[in-house]
Amino acid sequence: MKTEKISELTTNRLSVYLRCLNELSEEGAKTVSSGKLAKRFHLNSAQIRKDLACFGEFGVRGVGYYIDDLREQITKILGLDKDHRVGIIGAGRLGMALTDYYGLTQSNFEVVALFDADKKKIGSTIGGVEVFDFKKVKQVIKKEKIDVAVIAVPAEYAQKVLEEVSKAGIKAVMNFAPTPLQASSDVKVKSIDLTISLESLSYFLAQP
Amino acid sequence: MKTEKISELTTNRLSVYLRCLNELSEEGAKTVSSGKLAKRFHLNSAQIRKDLACFGEFGVRGVGYYIDDLREQITKILGLDKDHRVGIIGAGRLGMALTDYYGLTQSNFEVVALFDADKKKIGSTIGGVEVFDFKKVKQVIKKEKIDVAVIAVPAEYAQKVLEEVSKAGIKAVMNFAPTPLQASSDVKVKSIDLTISLESLSYFLAQP
Repeated sequence: MKTEKISELTTNRLSVYLRCLNELSEEGAKTVSSGKLAKRFHLNSAQIRKDLACFGEFGVRGVGYYIDDLREQITKILGLDKDHRVGIIGAGRLGMALTDYYGLTQSNFEVVALFDADKKKIGSTIGGVEVFDFKKVKQVIKKEKIDVAVIAVPAEYAQKVLEEVSKAGIKAVMNFAPTPLQASSDVKVKSIDLTISLESLSYFLAQP
Repeated sequence: MKTEKISELTTNRLSVYLRCLNELSEEGAKTVSSGKLAKRFHLNSAQIRKDLACFGEFGVRGVGYYIDDLREQITKILGLDKDHRVGIIGAGRLGMALTDYYGLTQSNFEVVALFDADKKKIGSTIGGVEVFDFKKVKQVIKKEKIDVAVIAVPAEYAQKVLEEVSKAGIKAVMNFAPTPLQASSDVKVKSIDLTISLESLSYFLAQP
């Protein structure tokens, strides 16, 4: 497997393919060709074949892909056969909304703790998830076996939060604070800037 | 300008460059080379030159880019010299969190209305923004000159919401509901699937 050269765009597309295959499977389909998959879900069939070819030979000549087999393979490739335990730092509206969002969406990510510095919030629960004192973040991360941290604090606190969770052994971080973060090389930070998404709509609206 | 072939990835990168240039400008810098820009912000200098070349010749030999001039150009390219008025459909925790987020982040997008079907929420205000009855979405979009809609409702209502706002003349939609949407060809829908972002972290964690 040539995994070291796989880009994030490829893995994002694999996530999309998996959703499509799940839908087909629910409808009772057993096999699908890259062409049919592309047509049904507005994807690109050459891209599908190229992306999957990075990980092995999944297609069968004259048949296409066996749906359940391919789902299982993609699930393994994306590491979705393992459960992950998520801690969200920041129990403001964004942190609460994310707790809801991930609670409602079926996935192998379970939000098991929220963290905040606000004494009024500490000890309360949101959607069944307890809000812990951020001062105890290291102990709770260890005790709750949290392996993914989501940063949902104001921009000025984000770097400090990243450093604290890194010290606690977290290797995967999703950052919602609208500021670039400096992480050590063994920690993967994925930043979601919701303003950039709006700006690409702005570009579209600016076209004649 | 060869704008018709510009991909969303390019415009996303332009958004990033603009943030970097703003930071340099605040520090008092007047010019910057693509190499220095790349080094300082962990970008790729060849990519910067290629992206900017799509829109004109901005670099000056031996100088690099004049920062304020380039900021102005990118701002125009992205349509950020025009203000946009945003309506958020769904005044749940996600809709409220987004109202906060866009209210706090400096941008040319102003959230001017929230919409919900829940009578308990209608008429209340969140961060100074009124919650309107979704039944009145068409009138309010026209009256408030809303040109961008953000969908923050549960997945099963998202398609219906998209159709209603499209009928009201909206051409740019950001969708947070975790479901694919079918839009007419003149409406740009940008879907943000927060689970896909987590899945790419999962892939990273699964690597040996």
